[in-house]
Amino acid sequence: MSSSSTSQQSKRPLTTLQRSLNRKVAVRLKNEIEYRGKMNNVDSYMNLILLDAEEFNGADAVANYGKVVIRGNNVLFIRLEKEL
Amino acid sequence: MSSSSTSQQSKRPLTTLQRSLNRKVAVRLKNEIEYRGKMNNVDSYMNLILLDAEEFNGADAVANYGKVVIRGNNVLFIRLEKEL
Amino acid sequence: MSSSSTSQQSKRPLTTLQRSLNRKVAVRLKNEIEYRGKMNNVDSYMNLILLDAEEFNGADAVANYGKVVIRGNNVLFIRLEKEL
Amino acid sequence: MSSSSTSQQSKRPLTTLQRSLNRKVAVRLKNEIEYRGKMNNVDSYMNLILLDAEEFNGADAVANYGKVVIRGNNVLFIRLEKEL
Amino acid sequence: MSSSSTSQQSKRPLTTLQRSLNRKVAVRLKNEIEYRGKMNNVDSYMNLILLDAEEFNGADAVANYGKVVIRGNNVLFIRLEKEL
Amino acid sequence: MSSSSTSQQSKRPLTTLQRSLNRKVAVRLKNEIEYRGKMNNVDSYMNLILLDAEEFNGADAVANYGKVVIRGNNVLFIRLEKEL
Amino acid sequence: MSSSSTSQQSKRPLTTLQRSLNRKVAVRLKNEIEYRGKMNNVDSYMNLILLDAEEFNGADAVANYGKVVIRGNNVLFIRLEKEL
Repeated sequence: MSSSSTSQQSKRPLTTLQRSLNRKVAVRLKNEIEYRGKMNNVDSYMNLILLDAEEFNGADAVANYGKVVIRGNNVLFIRLEKEL
Repeated sequence: MSSSSTSQQSKRPLTTLQRSLNRKVAVRLKNEIEYRGKMNNVDSYMNLILLDAEEFNGADAVANYGKVVIRGNNVLFIRLEKEL
Repeated sequence: MSSSSTSQQSKRPLTTLQRSLNRKVAVRLKNEIEYRGKMNNVDSYMNLILLDAEEFNGADAVANYGKVVIRGNNVLFIRLEKEL
Repeated sequence: MSSSSTSQQSKRPLTTLQRSLNRKVAVRLKNEIEYRGKMNNVDSYMNLILLDAEEFNGADAVANYGKVVIRGNNVLFIRLEKEL
Repeated sequence: MSSSSTSQQSKRPLTTLQRSLNRKVAVRLKNEIEYRGKMNNVDSYMNLILLDAEEFNGADAVANYGKVVIRGNNVLFIRLEKEL
Repeated sequence: MSSSSTSQQSKRPLTTLQRSLNRKVAVRLKNEIEYRGKMNNVDSYMNLILLDAEEFNGADAVANYGKVVIRGNNVLFIRLEKEL
Repeated sequence: MSSSSTSQQSKRPLTTLQRSLNRKVAVRLKNEIEYRGKMNNVDSYMNLILLDAEEFNGADAVANYGKVVIRGNNVLFIRLEKEL
């Protein structure tokens, strides 16, 4: 699937993630838990590193993690927040 | 599986998605939650970027996201709305 | 697994689907929901496009979709209806 | 894993299926539903086409399908009946 | 991972299965149902053919199958019985 | 991911397993059942052969198997016991 | 997806794990059980070896393991603790 023409206006999902390093993101997992922190890095499988991450169960922050590697296959979506 | 003859009348599913960028779509996930927004981009795994997305739990809009990357393996279907 | 001798009497499943474009089909998903519509296209992963699709929960039609792309990994089976 | 010596006495599972075309089979799916009909074709992923298929929920036949393509990843087992 | 030195004392799991053709086995599936019969053949995916198979739900034999092909991804374990 | 420098101090997980043949192990499966026995062999998929295996449901030994091949995708973890 | 420019500031997730050998980690699995110990090694699939591992069910340590190999596909996330 060639994307040469479209890739100038809008980036593919994995490229968009890769260009959003060091932004604040919210990562919702399949088990409904959400992690919010700075996306230090991400790979094509959506394995990602979050720094200064908060774990949310619904509206409640239930834990804090300094540095956590999330395995990509658990990811439901990644919400990109405004630039830090 | 050659599709040279059929691809002139109707496009393969991934090609159809790729040609529908910037249209409004509704993405139903396996967990029954639905996201409606502008499909900014999509790849062959059905990873996709939605802009100005609303999250629906049944008929109720429960959240708004400016920019969200949905991991393709969670997708049940993508409904294509009329052109914007 | 060579199929040169058998492929003359009966077609492989994916070839049969590919030769059934524009026929009416019923697609049962793993979550037991069924979609009935015209199969506009399908690929080897069973990703498929349905046009004028009705969503059935048991015997009840619960929604209508003009154009929907179903992700193949959710498919339980595809029932081929008589020619339109 | 070489099977040159063993393949003369007994066939590998996929070869056995491929040599059983047009026989009556019973296909049990992971969701416990069973389909019985004539196996028109099958591929290496166990995608298969059943003709004149009956759907069984336990001992009760609950539906009839003229021609249905079952996606292989849902298959629990395929029981081969006596020659037609 | 080279296994040249170890493979002389003990065989790799798939080789062991392949060398156990025509022995009696018990195949436990993920859904807790167990099938006992003669393993006619098996491939590297653990797809296997059982002959004269009995289906057990706990201690109760609930059905008999003359010839059944079990899809390997459902297998929890295969217990090898003494030589026939 | 080069591991030439690290592989001298500590072995990769699959290499560690391969070097632990004939040791006593406890294999916990995703369904919470645990099997304890001598690991006769293992491959890179974590398919493994246990000899003289005991099946534990919590603290209770519920069955004994002389020789069992466990399909690797069911494995949660493998605990290595002291040398026999 | 080229990462030549970004890989100087921040490491990809798997590289970060590989460079954290012998650190204390907490591994949360999909079944919500958590294992805390020294990460002796890890591979690209997130198969990992933990030494002196404690098993936690919520806040309670319920078991101790000297050496355990966790299969990567069960991992939800790996939390990196401060240097030992």
